[in-house]
Amino acid sequence: MEQYTVPGYTSVDEAKAVAARAYELDRKHVFHSWAAQGSFKPMVVTAAEGSYVWDGNGDKLLDFSSQLVNTNIGHQHPKVVQAIVEQAQRITTIAPHHVNDQRSEAARLISERTPGDLNQVFFTNSGAEAVEHAIRMARVHTGRNKVLSRYRSYHGATALAINVTGDPRRWANDRGTEGAVHFFGPFLYRSAFHSTNEAEEEQRALEHLEQVIELEGPATIAALILETVPGGPGIIPPPPGYLRGVRELCTKHGIVMIADEVMCGFGRTGRWFAIDEFDTVPDLLTFAKGVNSGYVPLGGVAIAPHIAATFNDRPYPGGLTYSGHPLACAAAVATINAMSDDGVVDNARIIGETVIEPALREMAQRHSSVGDLRGRGVFWAVELVENQSTKAPLAPYAGTSQAMVEMMAECKRLGMLPLMVSNRIHIAPPCTITADEAREGLEILDQVLKIADSYAT
Amino acid sequence: MEQYTVPGYTSVDEAKAVAARAYELDRKHVFHSWAAQGSFKPMVVTAAEGSYVWDGNGDKLLDFSSQLVNTNIGHQHPKVVQAIVEQAQRITTIAPHHVNDQRSEAARLISERTPGDLNQVFFTNSGAEAVEHAIRMARVHTGRNKVLSRYRSYHGATALAINVTGDPRRWANDRGTEGAVHFFGPFLYRSAFHSTNEAEEEQRALEHLEQVIELEGPATIAALILETVPGGPGIIPPPPGYLRGVRELCTKHGIVMIADEVMCGFGRTGRWFAIDEFDTVPDLLTFAKGVNSGYVPLGGVAIAPHIAATFNDRPYPGGLTYSGHPLACAAAVATINAMSDDGVVDNARIIGETVIEPALREMAQRHSSVGDLRGRGVFWAVELVENQSTKAPLAPYAGTSQAMVEMMAECKRLGMLPLMVSNRIHIAPPCTITADEAREGLEILDQVLKIADSYAT
Repeated sequence: MEQYTVPGYTSVDEAKAVAARAYELDRKHVFHSWAAQGSFKPMVVTAAEGSYVWDGNGDKLLDFSSQLVNTNIGHQHPKVVQAIVEQAQRITTIAPHHVNDQRSEAARLISERTPGDLNQVFFTNSGAEAVEHAIRMARVHTGRNKVLSRYRSYHGATALAINVTGDPRRWANDRGTEGAVHFFGPFLYRSAFHSTNEAEEEQRALEHLEQVIELEGPATIAALILETVPGGPGIIPPPPGYLRGVRELCTKHGIVMIADEVMCGFGRTGRWFAIDEFDTVPDLLTFAKGVNSGYVPLGGVAIAPHIAATFNDRPYPGGLTYSGHPLACAAAVATINAMSDDGVVDNARIIGETVIEPALREMAQRHSSVGDLRGRGVFWAVELVENQSTKAPLAPYAGTSQAMVEMMAECKRLGMLPLMVSNRIHIAPPCTITADEAREGLEILDQVLKIADSYAT
Repeated sequence: MEQYTVPGYTSVDEAKAVAARAYELDRKHVFHSWAAQGSFKPMVVTAAEGSYVWDGNGDKLLDFSSQLVNTNIGHQHPKVVQAIVEQAQRITTIAPHHVNDQRSEAARLISERTPGDLNQVFFTNSGAEAVEHAIRMARVHTGRNKVLSRYRSYHGATALAINVTGDPRRWANDRGTEGAVHFFGPFLYRSAFHSTNEAEEEQRALEHLEQVIELEGPATIAALILETVPGGPGIIPPPPGYLRGVRELCTKHGIVMIADEVMCGFGRTGRWFAIDEFDTVPDLLTFAKGVNSGYVPLGGVAIAPHIAATFNDRPYPGGLTYSGHPLACAAAVATINAMSDDGVVDNARIIGETVIEPALREMAQRHSSVGDLRGRGVFWAVELVENQSTKAPLAPYAGTSQAMVEMMAECKRLGMLPLMVSNRIHIAPPCTITADEAREGLEILDQVLKIADSYAT
């Protein structure tokens, strides 16, 4: 494909030389997440700007992945970069037991946006740590042990977080000792409840959850954690009344409700938090990624007053060296302010409603491989099947297939970086994406789906 | 005390106004690590430079804590700040499955310095995550479950990391399900083995460990994790041959030896890694803090080839969004290079040997409250007792006392920020501290010990 100038380099050759050296050292010294290290052939990224990244060949790719669905404000947003530069020159780090102005302001801005009365914030470095600490708060608050979570969920990769996770990444880490109990959530396309419509799926999923709670013993359950919109496992928005029903069951049984908004929060679904759509206030809300687009590692837990009160006189039994890190919090302050000033959350909603969803619905009519479409804002899954009647997936659950591998290569060849998971293409561009950029990526998707069609009947 | 100009502010009044607003928002919205939130009265830090920080009153304090023993290169080191500024303007974040030049270079520089053949690096955000992943690698590698760790240790606050921890921060989080088994390490001053000298303590501690391994069942033990020099629980350097003995037991029984160098690594003890003093190569080495002085959250695991090989064909079952974060890795590259170029590790050793240790030994002669002195480099503990014969501590284990509270206040009043833990004052200034600065802090310590003496008999 066409060679572009690579931002920050004097020539494409210079960028290629940097990439070659980076690749050589990477394969020698870097141990990668989730990979079989021997056969791993990662792509080099040499530059990033707005909705685009540049690979090791100097090729420009439209980033329809937001990396791991974290660069909600796009790459290298000038206001956030400037805030990091200024804070780096001021004060990069300070211990968590001292007060720092950027941490205070970030907590204020987050508290203003979180639902209901969630007005205190415990900062972590990551979503996994946020989940760990939210569950700890729930356990100490209730004096109970078990944690209910959904199958088809992802909550992070530290020991406890990966055990409440409901996808295959848990398996190698599951020793059966974490107190995690999994239930089925609503998922009409592959319903666990034999439902034929969304209202039925909602009702049956709530009945199922009520039975699980009753049979596990309500007084043994500390927390129920669920992604408002499960992300990695398939971008599955719940039926309209499901989360209110979950809230009622939690309230009835004294179970702490934790909404995990690490992936779906901070604009991704076209709302500040995905749960805003469902008129539900959890007791705890976990966040990371979009809070500062991952420019500096940051996560956290937003806490309701009745949970915080448990730790008013009694010390909270947890902490971390970089809790409320000034540089990370300065990036969050700038990100949240820029998202507000520039209408980034509305943009995500409007692009979703006016560009992405209509284009995907139209494509689904023409492509025999498209089994289901699900999403909100700039957060969509295209589920690919061998056969629309049998719904046989185009790749096995938690695996891949020749069809998916070919599509990935073709996407890149045509200039788009997607997120492929099992038999799905996840579409998760920055919330700042323009209509033209979105159309550019969707046109490439349309081309690439022909490969899927050739594997479908 | 004297009012100074506060760096980055036009006047002390401006700094005070910023501090007041930060404090107000903090108490309203920030939930703090390890604290009872209601009564917590944190100090504001408005600026930091080299070995000093400025509090909310505009007072300048010599930082003998390095915050949480992380700013090994001092506050706001110009080369590291500049590297963060340049990398922020280039590329802040990229997904862990892509290659980034700063990550590659950081991994190379770390591999060059880690002991023996530990030449691959898995990056995390924090020490806790490093410990979680190191234990996971050991469990998958061995197919075993249990983890041996020391009493008097701290390994982080995620569920698994806090359960292998051997200090009271574990208690509220311990459900007895994590497979953690604790043993006694060598600690001559409060020996668990009734030893009367260091050689005896070393021998008896190794015999004890051998018995624990035999009685727990070697084939059930995946890993043995220990801080090379236990930090938070008392800065306890081991006898000279202890770690070699541990290494031999681990090798004999196929147990993965994990050296936790989160606090004691990267120059703190006057060596790149504390374990360098003991001619021992662990299978895994965890790090964080000093790797980039915490300017951007970063941790990791250095991995020996035989452990990495387990994940050559089989995917490693763990990962995280910010593994090998470019901004964090750029800060590590600059930190390691600056430490090398400026002789920072040697400085820590020389200041320890020529200024800190002689001054403390001399003070111990004059102050009846000093029970024990322990340390290396810029990493020392002064253990305070009511009575040198009974060794009764001046504050209960994991608690505090009137004497310690008074000393903390007096340290700050005289212009020094110490780290106080139970009945100990930990002295952990930056590795860049000058002899004059060290003397300034030690003179304040000498004054403050008079308070301790007044509580001792």
